[in-house]
Amino acid sequence: MSPDNRRDESPSEEMIDRTLADSFPASDPPSWTLGRDHDQELERGDAESAGAAPTAADKESGASQAAGLKERLRARAFLFDLDGTLVDSVYQHVLSWHEALAASGFELAVWRIHRRIGMSGGLLVNALLRETGRRVTPEEAAYLQRLHTEAYARRVDQIRPLPGAKELLAYLSQTGVPCAIATSGRQESACLTVDILGLGSGVPLITRDQVDHAKPDPDLFLAAAKRLGVDINESVVVGDSVWDLLAARRARTLGVGLLSGGYGQDELERAGAYRVYEDPADLLKHLDEVGVRPAG
Amino acid sequence: MSPDNRRDESPSEEMIDRTLADSFPASDPPSWTLGRDHDQELERGDAESAGAAPTAADKESGASQAAGLKERLRARAFLFDLDGTLVDSVYQHVLSWHEALAASGFELAVWRIHRRIGMSGGLLVNALLRETGRRVTPEEAAYLQRLHTEAYARRVDQIRPLPGAKELLAYLSQTGVPCAIATSGRQESACLTVDILGLGSGVPLITRDQVDHAKPDPDLFLAAAKRLGVDINESVVVGDSVWDLLAARRARTLGVGLLSGGYGQDELERAGAYRVYEDPADLLKHLDEVGVRPAG
Repeated sequence: MSPDNRRDESPSEEMIDRTLADSFPASDPPSWTLGRDHDQELERGDAESAGAAPTAADKESGASQAAGLKERLRARAFLFDLDGTLVDSVYQHVLSWHEALAASGFELAVWRIHRRIGMSGGLLVNALLRETGRRVTPEEAAYLQRLHTEAYARRVDQIRPLPGAKELLAYLSQTGVPCAIATSGRQESACLTVDILGLGSGVPLITRDQVDHAKPDPDLFLAAAKRLGVDINESVVVGDSVWDLLAARRARTLGVGLLSGGYGQDELERAGAYRVYEDPADLLKHLDEVGVRPAG
Repeated sequence: MSPDNRRDESPSEEMIDRTLADSFPASDPPSWTLGRDHDQELERGDAESAGAAPTAADKESGASQAAGLKERLRARAFLFDLDGTLVDSVYQHVLSWHEALAASGFELAVWRIHRRIGMSGGLLVNALLRETGRRVTPEEAAYLQRLHTEAYARRVDQIRPLPGAKELLAYLSQTGVPCAIATSGRQESACLTVDILGLGSGVPLITRDQVDHAKPDPDLFLAAAKRLGVDINESVVVGDSVWDLLAARRARTLGVGLLSGGYGQDELERAGAYRVYEDPADLLKHLDEVGVRPAG
Protein backbone atom coordinates (compact mmCIF):
# COMPACT_ATOMS: atom_id res chain seq x y z
CA MET A 1 0.00 0.00 0.00
CA SER A 2 3.00 2.31 0.37
CA PRO A 3 3.90 4.53 -2.58
CA ASP A 4 6.37 3.02 -4.97
CA ASN A 5 9.66 4.85 -5.22
CA ARG A 6 10.37 4.07 -8.83
CA ARG A 7 11.22 7.16 -10.81
CA ASP A 8 9.16 6.29 -13.89
CA GLU A 9 6.61 8.93 -14.65
CA SER A 10 3.08 7.62 -14.39
CA PRO A 11 1.94 7.19 -18.00
CA SER A 12 -1.23 8.72 -19.34
CA GLU A 13 -4.29 6.55 -19.93
CA GLU A 14 -3.69 6.92 -23.64
CA MET A 15 -0.08 5.72 -23.37
CA ILE A 16 -1.27 2.64 -21.53
CA ASP A 17 -4.11 2.04 -23.93
CA ARG A 18 -1.74 2.38 -26.88
CA THR A 19 0.61 -0.17 -25.35
CA LEU A 20 -2.29 -2.49 -24.65
CA ALA A 21 -3.47 -2.07 -28.24
CA ASP A 22 0.00 -3.03 -29.47
CA SER A 23 -0.06 -6.08 -27.21
CA PHE A 24 -3.47 -7.16 -28.46
CA PRO A 25 -3.74 -5.91 -32.04
CA ALA A 26 -7.25 -5.80 -33.45
CA SER A 27 -7.95 -8.15 -36.30
CA ASP A 28 -9.27 -6.09 -39.18
CA PRO A 29 -12.03 -6.75 -39.98
CA PRO A 30 -12.97 -8.18 -36.54
CA SER A 31 -13.42 -11.92 -36.50
CA TRP A 32 -16.86 -11.60 -34.90
CA THR A 33 -19.10 -9.65 -37.24
CA LEU A 34 -22.58 -9.30 -38.64
CA GLY A 35 -24.55 -12.45 -39.32
CA ARG A 36 -27.68 -10.83 -40.77
CA ASP A 37 -28.48 -8.03 -43.11
CA HIS A 38 -28.78 -4.92 -41.02
CA ASP A 39 -29.59 -2.76 -44.03
CA GLN A 40 -32.70 -4.86 -44.44
CA GLU A 41 -33.53 -4.31 -40.75
CA LEU A 42 -33.05 -0.58 -41.15
CA GLU A 43 -35.31 -0.53 -44.20
CA ARG A 44 -38.00 -2.23 -42.16
CA GLY A 45 -37.53 0.41 -39.48
CA ASP A 46 -37.82 3.15 -42.09
CA ALA A 47 -41.00 1.62 -43.51
CA GLU A 48 -42.46 1.60 -40.00
CA SER A 49 -41.52 5.19 -39.41
CA ALA A 50 -43.09 6.19 -42.76
CA GLY A 51 -46.34 4.61 -41.58
CA ALA A 52 -46.17 6.60 -38.35
CA ALA A 53 -45.20 9.88 -40.05
CA PRO A 54 -47.60 12.87 -39.86
CA THR A 55 -50.84 12.05 -41.69
CA ALA A 56 -53.36 14.34 -43.38
CA ALA A 57 -54.95 14.84 -39.94
CA ASP A 58 -51.80 16.62 -38.75
CA LYS A 59 -52.34 19.76 -40.79
CA GLU A 60 -51.01 22.19 -38.27
CA SER A 61 -47.31 22.86 -38.62
CA GLY A 62 -46.74 22.68 -34.79
CA ALA A 63 -48.37 19.28 -34.48
CA SER A 64 -46.40 18.05 -37.46
CA GLN A 65 -43.12 19.27 -36.04
CA ALA A 66 -43.89 17.70 -32.66
CA ALA A 67 -44.77 14.41 -34.32
CA GLY A 68 -41.59 14.60 -36.36
CA LEU A 69 -39.46 15.21 -33.28
CA LYS A 70 -41.22 12.43 -31.38
CA GLU A 71 -40.64 10.13 -34.30
CA ARG A 72 -37.01 11.13 -34.58
CA LEU A 73 -36.44 10.39 -30.88
CA ARG A 74 -38.03 6.96 -30.73
CA ALA A 75 -35.74 3.97 -30.17
CA ARG A 76 -34.46 2.87 -33.58
CA ALA A 77 -31.48 0.89 -32.29
CA PHE A 78 -30.14 -0.67 -29.09
CA LEU A 79 -26.48 -0.44 -28.19
CA PHE A 80 -25.66 -2.98 -25.48
CA ASP A 81 -22.75 -3.28 -23.14
CA LEU A 82 -21.63 -6.93 -22.85
CA ASP A 83 -20.34 -7.99 -19.39
CA GLY A 84 -23.04 -7.72 -16.73
CA THR A 85 -25.57 -6.56 -19.32
CA LEU A 86 -26.02 -9.56 -21.62
CA VAL A 87 -23.64 -12.08 -20.02
CA ASP A 88 -23.23 -12.88 -16.31
CA SER A 89 -19.47 -12.35 -16.31
CA VAL A 90 -18.78 -9.34 -14.08
CA TYR A 91 -17.80 -11.18 -10.90
CA GLN A 92 -15.46 -13.46 -12.83
CA HIS A 93 -13.84 -10.41 -14.44
CA VAL A 94 -13.51 -8.80 -11.00
CA LEU A 95 -11.74 -11.79 -9.46
CA SER A 96 -9.59 -12.20 -12.60
CA TRP A 97 -8.35 -8.61 -12.18
CA HIS A 98 -7.84 -9.25 -8.47
CA GLU A 99 -5.74 -12.31 -9.28
CA ALA A 100 -3.72 -10.44 -11.93
CA LEU A 101 -3.05 -7.50 -9.63
CA ALA A 102 -2.13 -9.73 -6.66
CA ALA A 103 0.28 -11.73 -8.85
CA SER A 104 1.99 -8.42 -9.68
CA GLY A 105 2.21 -7.35 -6.06
CA PHE A 106 -0.72 -4.92 -6.10
CA GLU A 107 -3.05 -5.50 -3.15
CA LEU A 108 -6.45 -3.96 -3.84
CA ALA A 109 -9.79 -4.67 -2.18
CA VAL A 110 -12.12 -6.54 -4.50
CA TRP A 111 -15.03 -4.07 -4.23
CA ARG A 112 -12.83 -1.28 -5.61
CA ILE A 113 -12.10 -3.39 -8.69
CA HIS A 114 -15.84 -4.10 -9.04
CA ARG A 115 -16.56 -0.38 -9.06
CA ARG A 116 -14.11 0.11 -11.96
CA ILE A 117 -15.25 -2.80 -14.13
CA GLY A 118 -16.62 -1.56 -17.45
CA MET A 119 -13.74 0.81 -18.09
CA SER A 120 -11.02 -0.20 -20.52
CA GLY A 121 -8.17 -2.22 -19.06
CA GLY A 122 -5.86 0.80 -19.34
CA LEU A 123 -8.24 3.15 -17.54
CA LEU A 124 -9.04 0.50 -14.94
CA VAL A 125 -5.42 -0.24 -14.13
CA ASN A 126 -4.58 3.46 -13.93
CA ALA A 127 -7.59 4.27 -11.77
CA LEU A 128 -6.98 1.39 -9.39
CA LEU A 129 -3.32 2.07 -8.99
CA ARG A 130 -3.99 5.73 -8.37
CA GLU A 131 -5.89 4.57 -5.28
CA THR A 132 -2.83 2.71 -4.01
CA GLY A 133 -0.39 5.51 -4.82
CA ARG A 134 1.60 3.10 -6.98
CA ARG A 135 2.74 3.90 -10.49
CA VAL A 136 2.67 1.55 -13.41
CA THR A 137 4.53 1.63 -16.71
CA PRO A 138 2.76 0.88 -20.00
CA GLU A 139 4.65 -2.42 -20.11
CA GLU A 140 3.44 -3.36 -16.63
CA ALA A 141 -0.11 -2.44 -17.61
CA ALA A 142 0.11 -4.64 -20.69
CA TYR A 143 1.43 -7.49 -18.51
CA LEU A 144 -1.48 -7.01 -16.07
CA GLN A 145 -3.93 -7.11 -18.99
CA ARG A 146 -2.35 -10.35 -20.20
CA LEU A 147 -2.60 -11.92 -16.72
CA HIS A 148 -6.24 -10.82 -16.53
CA THR A 149 -7.08 -12.31 -19.93
CA GLU A 150 -5.52 -15.63 -18.90
CA ALA A 151 -7.28 -15.64 -15.50
CA TYR A 152 -10.61 -14.83 -17.17
CA ALA A 153 -10.18 -17.59 -19.76
CA ARG A 154 -9.77 -20.08 -16.88
CA ARG A 155 -13.14 -18.96 -15.44
CA VAL A 156 -15.13 -18.74 -18.66
CA ASP A 157 -16.74 -22.16 -18.33
CA GLN A 158 -18.64 -20.92 -15.23
CA ILE A 159 -20.24 -18.06 -17.17
CA ARG A 160 -23.81 -18.01 -18.51
CA PRO A 161 -25.99 -15.58 -20.46
CA LEU A 162 -28.06 -13.33 -18.19
CA PRO A 163 -31.76 -14.24 -17.92
CA GLY A 164 -33.66 -12.87 -20.91
CA ALA A 165 -30.56 -11.77 -22.87
CA LYS A 166 -31.15 -14.09 -25.83
CA GLU A 167 -34.90 -13.48 -25.76
CA LEU A 168 -34.44 -9.69 -25.73
CA LEU A 169 -32.08 -9.75 -28.72
CA ALA A 170 -34.43 -12.12 -30.58
CA TYR A 171 -37.45 -9.90 -29.87
CA LEU A 172 -35.68 -6.74 -31.01
CA SER A 173 -34.60 -8.51 -34.18
CA GLN A 174 -38.22 -9.58 -34.88
CA THR A 175 -39.41 -6.04 -34.21
CA GLY A 176 -36.93 -4.61 -36.68
CA VAL A 177 -34.80 -2.80 -34.12
CA PRO A 178 -31.12 -3.36 -34.90
CA CYS A 179 -28.73 -4.09 -32.04
CA ALA A 180 -25.00 -3.82 -31.51
CA ILE A 181 -22.68 -4.71 -28.62
CA ALA A 182 -20.08 -2.18 -27.49
CA THR A 183 -17.61 -3.31 -24.82
CA SER A 184 -14.59 -1.76 -23.12
CA GLY A 185 -13.06 -5.24 -23.23
CA ARG A 186 -10.45 -6.34 -25.71
CA GLN A 187 -11.31 -8.55 -28.69
CA GLU A 188 -9.77 -11.65 -27.10
CA SER A 189 -11.87 -11.67 -23.90
CA ALA A 190 -14.94 -10.21 -25.60
CA CYS A 191 -15.10 -13.01 -28.16
CA LEU A 192 -14.96 -15.62 -25.38
CA THR A 193 -17.88 -13.83 -23.71
CA VAL A 194 -19.97 -13.26 -26.85
CA ASP A 195 -19.64 -16.95 -27.73
CA ILE A 196 -21.55 -17.70 -24.50
CA LEU A 197 -24.59 -15.89 -25.93
CA GLY A 198 -24.57 -18.28 -28.89
CA LEU A 199 -26.39 -15.75 -31.06
CA GLY A 200 -27.88 -17.31 -34.16
CA SER A 201 -28.45 -13.98 -35.83
CA GLY A 202 -25.50 -11.67 -35.81
CA VAL A 203 -25.10 -8.43 -33.93
CA PRO A 204 -21.99 -6.33 -34.57
CA LEU A 205 -19.41 -6.31 -31.78
CA ILE A 206 -17.35 -3.19 -31.15
CA THR A 207 -14.38 -3.68 -28.82
CA ARG A 208 -11.76 -1.48 -27.21
CA ASP A 209 -9.37 -2.29 -30.04
CA GLN A 210 -11.52 -0.46 -32.59
CA VAL A 211 -11.80 2.99 -30.96
CA ASP A 212 -9.47 5.61 -29.54
CA HIS A 213 -11.04 5.80 -26.08
CA ALA A 214 -13.13 3.37 -24.05
CA LYS A 215 -15.98 4.16 -21.64
CA PRO A 216 -16.72 6.57 -20.03
CA ASP A 217 -15.76 8.21 -23.34
CA PRO A 218 -18.57 7.88 -25.88
CA ASP A 219 -16.43 6.43 -28.71
CA LEU A 220 -17.62 2.81 -28.37
CA PHE A 221 -21.31 3.68 -28.56
CA LEU A 222 -20.74 6.21 -31.36
CA ALA A 223 -18.88 3.54 -33.34
CA ALA A 224 -21.68 1.04 -32.69
CA ALA A 225 -24.36 3.47 -33.94
CA LYS A 226 -22.26 4.24 -37.00
CA ARG A 227 -21.84 0.53 -37.74
CA LEU A 228 -25.62 0.11 -37.61
CA GLY A 229 -26.11 3.20 -39.76
CA VAL A 230 -28.31 4.91 -37.17
CA ASP A 231 -28.18 8.30 -35.49
CA ILE A 232 -26.84 8.03 -31.92
CA ASN A 233 -29.75 10.25 -30.78
CA GLU A 234 -32.17 7.59 -31.98
CA SER A 235 -30.39 4.82 -30.07
CA VAL A 236 -30.80 3.47 -26.56
CA VAL A 237 -27.68 2.49 -24.63
CA VAL A 238 -28.10 -0.38 -22.16
CA GLY A 239 -25.46 -1.09 -19.54
CA ASP A 240 -24.89 -2.32 -16.00
CA SER A 241 -22.16 0.10 -14.90
CA VAL A 242 -21.95 3.81 -14.25
CA TRP A 243 -19.35 3.99 -17.05
CA ASP A 244 -21.95 2.90 -19.61
CA LEU A 245 -24.37 5.54 -18.40
CA LEU A 246 -21.76 8.29 -18.32
CA ALA A 247 -20.71 7.33 -21.85
CA ALA A 248 -24.37 7.44 -22.93
CA ARG A 249 -24.69 10.98 -21.60
CA ARG A 250 -21.51 12.06 -23.32
CA ALA A 251 -22.96 10.59 -26.52
CA ARG A 252 -26.15 12.63 -25.87
CA THR A 253 -28.34 9.55 -25.88
CA LEU A 254 -30.62 7.66 -23.51
CA GLY A 255 -28.97 5.29 -21.02
CA VAL A 256 -30.84 2.39 -19.43
CA GLY A 257 -29.29 0.69 -16.41
CA LEU A 258 -29.42 -2.97 -15.40
CA LEU A 259 -28.77 -4.23 -11.87
CA SER A 260 -27.32 -7.50 -13.19
CA GLY A 261 -23.72 -6.31 -12.93
CA GLY A 262 -24.05 -5.84 -9.18
CA TYR A 263 -24.17 -2.05 -8.92
CA GLY A 264 -26.89 -0.47 -6.79
CA GLN A 265 -29.92 1.20 -8.37
CA ASP A 266 -29.03 4.54 -6.83
CA GLU A 267 -25.53 4.50 -8.35
CA LEU A 268 -26.97 3.93 -11.81
CA GLU A 269 -29.63 6.61 -11.39
CA ARG A 270 -27.07 9.12 -10.19
CA ALA A 271 -24.95 8.36 -13.25
CA GLY A 272 -27.93 9.39 -15.38
CA ALA A 273 -29.96 6.23 -16.05
CA TYR A 274 -33.31 7.07 -17.64
CA ARG A 275 -34.69 3.83 -16.19
CA VAL A 276 -33.17 0.93 -14.24
CA TYR A 277 -34.27 -2.70 -14.67
CA GLU A 278 -33.10 -5.86 -12.96
CA ASP A 279 -31.74 -7.69 -15.99
CA PRO A 280 -32.43 -8.20 -19.73
CA ALA A 281 -35.58 -10.21 -18.91
CA ASP A 282 -36.96 -7.28 -16.92
CA LEU A 283 -36.07 -4.81 -19.69
CA LEU A 284 -37.85 -7.04 -22.21
CA LYS A 285 -41.04 -6.76 -20.13
CA HIS A 286 -40.81 -2.96 -20.10
CA LEU A 287 -39.63 -2.15 -23.62
CA ASP A 288 -42.60 0.16 -24.11
CA GLU A 289 -41.10 2.46 -21.47
CA VAL A 290 -38.00 3.02 -23.61
CA GLY A 291 -39.73 3.66 -26.92
CA VAL A 292 -40.07 0.25 -28.57
CA ARG A 293 -43.44 -0.52 -30.14
CA PRO A 294 -44.73 -4.09 -30.28
CA ALA A 295 -43.95 -5.95 -33.49
CA GLY A 296 -46.79 -5.30 -35.96
CA MET B 1 -35.64 -21.66 -14.52
CA SER B 2 -38.91 -23.55 -14.75
CA PRO B 3 -40.64 -24.50 -11.51
CA ASP B 4 -39.73 -27.88 -10.16
CA ASN B 5 -42.58 -30.37 -10.07
CA ARG B 6 -41.42 -32.28 -7.01
CA ARG B 7 -44.16 -32.64 -4.47
CA ASP B 8 -42.01 -31.94 -1.41
CA GLU B 9 -43.31 -29.07 0.58
CA SER B 10 -40.85 -26.19 0.68
CA PRO B 11 -39.30 -26.39 4.15
CA SER B 12 -39.23 -23.48 6.51
CA GLU B 13 -36.02 -21.54 7.04
CA GLU B 14 -35.83 -23.07 10.49
CA MET B 15 -36.13 -26.61 9.16
CA ILE B 16 -33.27 -25.94 6.76
CA ASP B 17 -31.19 -24.26 9.42
CA ARG B 18 -31.77 -27.16 11.80
CA THR B 19 -30.64 -29.61 9.13
CA LEU B 20 -27.60 -27.47 8.37
CA ALA B 21 -26.81 -27.33 12.09
CA ASP B 22 -26.97 -31.12 12.24
CA SER B 23 -24.64 -31.34 9.26
CA PHE B 24 -22.16 -28.94 10.79
CA PRO B 25 -22.41 -29.35 14.55
CA ALA B 26 -20.92 -26.54 16.59
CA SER B 27 -18.00 -27.45 18.77
CA ASP B 28 -18.77 -26.37 22.31
CA PRO B 29 -16.96 -24.32 23.40
CA PRO B 30 -15.99 -22.97 19.95
CA SER B 31 -12.43 -23.72 18.89
CA TRP B 32 -11.79 -20.04 18.20
CA THR B 33 -12.19 -18.11 21.42
CA LEU B 34 -10.92 -15.26 23.51
CA GLY B 35 -7.20 -14.68 23.55
CA ARG B 36 -7.20 -11.81 26.03
CA ASP B 37 -8.96 -10.93 29.22
CA HIS B 38 -12.10 -9.09 28.29
CA ASP B 39 -13.08 -8.64 31.91
CA GLN B 40 -9.93 -6.61 32.30
CA GLU B 41 -10.90 -4.56 29.25
CA LEU B 42 -14.35 -4.00 30.65
CA GLU B 43 -12.92 -2.87 33.95
CA ARG B 44 -10.79 -0.38 32.11
CA GLY B 45 -13.91 0.80 30.26
CA ASP B 46 -15.74 1.14 33.57
CA ALA B 47 -12.89 3.12 35.05
CA GLU B 48 -13.06 5.45 32.07
CA SER B 49 -16.77 5.88 32.35
CA ALA B 50 -16.43 6.61 36.07
CA GLY B 51 -14.01 9.37 35.18
CA ALA B 52 -16.52 10.81 32.73
CA ALA B 53 -19.46 10.43 35.12
CA PRO B 54 -21.31 13.57 36.33
CA THR B 55 -18.99 15.67 38.45
CA ALA B 56 -19.75 18.08 41.27
CA ALA B 57 -20.39 20.71 38.58
CA ASP B 58 -23.43 18.74 37.39
CA LYS B 59 -25.59 19.51 40.36
CA GLU B 60 -28.85 19.90 38.55
CA SER B 61 -30.82 16.71 38.26
CA GLY B 62 -31.66 17.33 34.53
CA ALA B 63 -28.07 17.88 33.51
CA SER B 64 -27.06 14.86 35.50
CA GLN B 65 -29.70 12.68 33.85
CA ALA B 66 -28.72 13.92 30.38
CA ALA B 67 -25.06 13.23 31.10
CA GLY B 68 -26.00 9.81 32.42
CA LEU B 69 -27.99 8.99 29.27
CA LYS B 70 -25.22 10.29 27.04
CA GLU B 71 -22.75 8.19 28.96
CA ARG B 72 -24.98 5.16 28.75
CA LEU B 73 -25.28 5.51 24.97
CA ARG B 74 -21.62 5.94 24.11
CA ALA B 75 -19.86 3.15 22.24
CA ARG B 76 -18.66 0.64 24.79
CA ALA B 77 -18.23 -2.27 22.41
CA PHE B 78 -17.98 -3.03 18.70
CA LEU B 79 -19.73 -6.01 17.17
CA PHE B 80 -18.31 -6.73 13.74
CA ASP B 81 -19.60 -8.75 10.88
CA LEU B 82 -16.79 -10.81 9.30
CA ASP B 83 -17.02 -11.29 5.49
CA GLY B 84 -16.81 -7.98 3.63
CA THR B 85 -16.38 -6.09 6.92
CA LEU B 86 -13.03 -7.30 8.26
CA VAL B 87 -11.97 -9.74 5.54
CA ASP B 88 -12.15 -9.27 1.76
CA SER B 89 -14.03 -12.51 1.14
CA VAL B 90 -17.48 -11.55 -0.19
CA TYR B 91 -16.82 -12.07 -3.90
CA GLN B 92 -15.24 -15.46 -3.24
CA HIS B 93 -18.28 -16.45 -1.16
CA VAL B 94 -20.57 -15.26 -3.97
CA LEU B 95 -18.82 -17.33 -6.65
CA SER B 96 -18.62 -20.31 -4.27
CA TRP B 97 -22.41 -20.22 -3.86
CA HIS B 98 -22.79 -19.78 -7.62
CA GLU B 99 -20.63 -22.86 -8.19
CA ALA B 100 -22.53 -24.90 -5.58
CA LEU B 101 -25.92 -23.92 -7.01
CA ALA B 102 -24.84 -24.57 -10.62
CA ALA B 103 -23.49 -28.00 -9.66
CA SER B 104 -26.94 -28.79 -8.25
CA GLY B 105 -28.75 -27.60 -11.36
CA PHE B 106 -29.83 -24.21 -10.01
CA GLU B 107 -29.04 -21.41 -12.48
CA LEU B 108 -29.03 -18.08 -10.68
CA ALA B 109 -27.49 -14.78 -11.76
CA VAL B 110 -24.45 -13.92 -9.66
CA TRP B 111 -25.66 -10.44 -8.59
CA ARG B 112 -28.73 -11.99 -6.93
CA ILE B 113 -26.45 -14.19 -4.82
CA HIS B 114 -24.34 -11.14 -3.94
CA ARG B 115 -27.44 -9.35 -2.67
CA ARG B 116 -28.20 -12.27 -0.31
CA ILE B 117 -24.70 -12.76 1.08
CA GLY B 118 -24.61 -12.12 4.82
CA MET B 119 -27.71 -14.18 5.55
CA SER B 120 -27.31 -17.67 6.95
CA GLY B 121 -26.86 -20.44 4.42
CA GLY B 122 -30.38 -21.68 5.10
CA LEU B 123 -32.00 -18.29 4.59
CA LEU B 124 -29.84 -17.60 1.57
CA VAL B 125 -30.67 -20.87 -0.16
CA ASN B 126 -34.37 -20.44 0.57
CA ALA B 127 -34.43 -16.83 -0.58
CA LEU B 128 -32.55 -17.57 -3.79
CA LEU B 129 -34.61 -20.57 -4.70
CA ARG B 130 -37.82 -18.63 -4.04
CA GLU B 131 -36.69 -16.38 -6.89
CA THR B 132 -36.40 -19.33 -9.27
CA GLY B 133 -39.67 -20.94 -8.18
CA ARG B 134 -37.76 -24.11 -7.26
CA ARG B 135 -38.20 -25.90 -3.97
CA VAL B 136 -35.45 -27.41 -1.92
CA THR B 137 -35.54 -30.06 0.78
CA PRO B 138 -33.52 -29.65 3.98
CA GLU B 139 -31.22 -32.43 2.72
CA GLU B 140 -30.62 -30.59 -0.56
CA ALA B 141 -29.94 -27.38 1.34
CA ALA B 142 -27.39 -29.18 3.52
CA TYR B 143 -25.77 -30.60 0.38
CA LEU B 144 -25.61 -27.11 -1.16
CA GLN B 145 -24.01 -25.78 2.02
CA ARG B 146 -21.42 -28.54 1.88
CA LEU B 147 -20.62 -27.78 -1.78
CA HIS B 148 -20.29 -24.09 -0.89
CA THR B 149 -17.94 -24.78 2.02
CA GLU B 150 -15.73 -26.91 -0.25
CA ALA B 151 -15.76 -24.32 -3.06
CA TYR B 152 -14.91 -21.55 -0.58
CA ALA B 153 -12.05 -23.55 0.93
CA ARG B 154 -10.54 -23.82 -2.58
CA ARG B 155 -10.59 -20.01 -2.91
CA VAL B 156 -9.39 -19.10 0.57
CA ASP B 157 -5.76 -18.57 -0.42
CA GLN B 158 -6.82 -15.57 -2.56
CA ILE B 159 -8.40 -13.82 0.43
CA ARG B 160 -6.83 -10.97 2.41
CA PRO B 161 -7.83 -8.82 5.39
CA LEU B 162 -9.56 -5.59 4.36
CA PRO B 163 -7.40 -2.44 4.60
CA GLY B 164 -7.33 -1.19 8.17
CA ALA B 165 -9.06 -4.22 9.70
CA LYS B 166 -6.14 -5.28 11.89
CA GLU B 167 -5.29 -1.66 12.76
CA LEU B 168 -8.90 -0.92 13.75
CA LEU B 169 -9.11 -3.94 16.05
CA ALA B 170 -5.74 -3.09 17.56
CA TYR B 171 -6.75 0.53 18.16
CA LEU B 172 -10.03 -0.43 19.81
CA SER B 173 -8.16 -2.90 22.01
CA GLN B 174 -5.70 -0.16 23.07
CA THR B 175 -8.59 2.19 23.75
CA GLY B 176 -10.29 -0.34 25.98
CA VAL B 177 -13.28 -0.94 23.71
CA PRO B 178 -13.99 -4.68 23.52
CA CYS B 179 -14.81 -6.22 20.15
CA ALA B 180 -16.56 -9.36 18.97
CA ILE B 181 -17.21 -10.88 15.54
CA ALA B 182 -20.70 -12.13 14.70
CA THR B 183 -21.15 -13.92 11.38
CA SER B 184 -24.03 -15.68 9.64
CA GLY B 185 -21.44 -18.17 8.39
CA ARG B 186 -20.89 -21.60 9.86
CA GLN B 187 -17.97 -22.36 12.14
CA GLU B 188 -16.08 -24.24 9.43
CA SER B 189 -15.94 -21.41 6.86
CA ALA B 190 -15.77 -18.68 9.51
CA CYS B 191 -12.64 -20.15 11.10
CA LEU B 192 -10.91 -20.25 7.70
CA THR B 193 -11.77 -16.57 7.28
CA VAL B 194 -10.87 -15.45 10.80
CA ASP B 195 -7.47 -17.13 10.46
CA ILE B 196 -6.73 -14.67 7.62
CA LEU B 197 -6.95 -11.79 10.10
CA GLY B 198 -4.19 -13.41 12.13
CA LEU B 199 -5.34 -11.66 15.28
CA GLY B 200 -2.73 -11.74 17.98
CA SER B 201 -5.15 -10.63 20.63
CA GLY B 202 -8.37 -12.57 20.74
CA VAL B 203 -11.84 -11.39 19.87
CA PRO B 204 -14.76 -13.76 20.47
CA LEU B 205 -16.33 -15.25 17.35
CA ILE B 206 -20.06 -15.98 17.26
CA THR B 207 -21.19 -18.13 14.34
CA ARG B 208 -24.50 -19.34 12.96
CA ASP B 209 -24.09 -22.60 14.86
CA GLN B 210 -24.41 -20.85 18.23
CA VAL B 211 -27.76 -19.07 17.79
CA ASP B 212 -31.30 -19.94 16.76
CA HIS B 213 -31.59 -17.43 13.92
CA ALA B 214 -29.04 -15.70 11.71
CA LYS B 215 -29.17 -12.16 10.29
CA PRO B 216 -31.40 -10.27 9.64
CA ASP B 217 -32.58 -11.63 13.03
CA PRO B 218 -30.70 -9.91 15.87
CA ASP B 219 -29.60 -13.13 17.63
CA LEU B 220 -25.96 -13.08 16.50
CA PHE B 221 -25.33 -9.52 17.68
CA LEU B 222 -27.26 -10.09 20.94
CA ALA B 223 -25.13 -13.17 21.60
CA ALA B 224 -21.95 -11.22 20.83
CA ALA B 225 -22.89 -8.42 23.26
CA LYS B 226 -23.74 -10.99 25.92
CA ARG B 227 -20.39 -12.72 25.40
CA LEU B 228 -18.61 -9.38 25.93
CA GLY B 229 -20.78 -8.64 28.97
CA VAL B 230 -22.04 -5.35 27.51
CA ASP B 231 -25.51 -3.95 26.92
CA ILE B 232 -26.50 -4.18 23.25
CA ASN B 233 -27.65 -0.54 23.44
CA GLU B 234 -24.10 0.49 24.24
CA SER B 235 -22.65 -1.41 21.29
CA VAL B 236 -22.01 -0.40 17.70
CA VAL B 237 -22.69 -2.97 14.97
CA VAL B 238 -20.43 -2.74 11.91
CA GLY B 239 -21.32 -4.58 8.72
CA ASP B 240 -21.15 -4.44 4.93
CA SER B 241 -24.57 -5.83 4.06
CA VAL B 242 -28.15 -4.70 4.50
CA TRP B 243 -28.69 -7.83 6.64
CA ASP B 244 -26.22 -6.55 9.24
CA LEU B 245 -27.95 -3.19 9.38
CA LEU B 246 -31.43 -4.68 9.58
CA ALA B 247 -30.24 -6.97 12.38
CA ALA B 248 -28.75 -3.94 14.17
CA ARG B 249 -32.09 -2.18 14.02
CA ARG B 250 -33.90 -5.23 15.30
CA ALA B 251 -31.38 -5.31 18.16
CA ARG B 252 -32.16 -1.60 18.81
CA THR B 253 -28.57 -0.59 18.37
CA LEU B 254 -26.50 1.61 16.06
CA GLY B 255 -25.48 0.11 12.70
CA VAL B 256 -22.49 1.39 10.74
CA GLY B 257 -22.15 0.35 7.10
CA LEU B 258 -18.98 -0.36 5.10
CA LEU B 259 -18.83 -0.30 1.30
CA SER B 260 -16.14 -3.00 1.28
CA GLY B 261 -18.62 -5.81 0.63
CA GLY B 262 -19.66 -4.27 -2.66
CA TYR B 263 -23.12 -2.92 -1.74
CA GLY B 264 -23.96 0.65 -2.72
CA GLN B 265 -24.01 3.43 -0.14
CA ASP B 266 -27.70 4.11 -0.77
CA GLU B 267 -28.64 0.47 -0.06
CA LEU B 268 -26.88 0.61 3.30
CA GLU B 269 -28.40 3.96 4.23
CA ARG B 270 -31.88 2.76 3.33
CA ALA B 271 -31.34 -0.28 5.53
CA GLY B 272 -30.73 2.11 8.42
CA ALA B 273 -26.99 2.77 8.52
CA TYR B 274 -26.17 5.58 10.94
CA ARG B 275 -23.02 6.26 8.92
CA VAL B 276 -21.35 4.58 5.93
CA TYR B 277 -17.58 4.33 5.49
CA GLU B 278 -15.49 2.81 2.72
CA ASP B 279 -13.73 0.12 4.73
CA PRO B 280 -12.23 -0.51 8.20
CA ALA B 281 -9.41 1.98 7.48
CA ASP B 282 -11.95 4.71 6.77
CA LEU B 283 -13.94 3.84 9.90
CA LEU B 284 -10.75 4.03 11.95
CA LYS B 285 -10.24 7.61 10.73
CA HIS B 286 -13.77 8.59 11.79
CA LEU B 287 -14.21 6.72 15.09
CA ASP B 288 -15.10 9.98 16.83
CA GLU B 289 -18.29 10.08 14.74
CA VAL B 290 -19.50 6.83 16.28
CA GLY B 291 -18.75 7.60 19.92
CA VAL B 292 -15.21 6.40 20.51
CA ARG B 293 -12.92 8.73 22.44
CA PRO B 294 -9.21 8.79 21.77
CA ALA B 295 -7.17 6.57 24.07
CA GLY B 296 -6.14 8.64 27.08
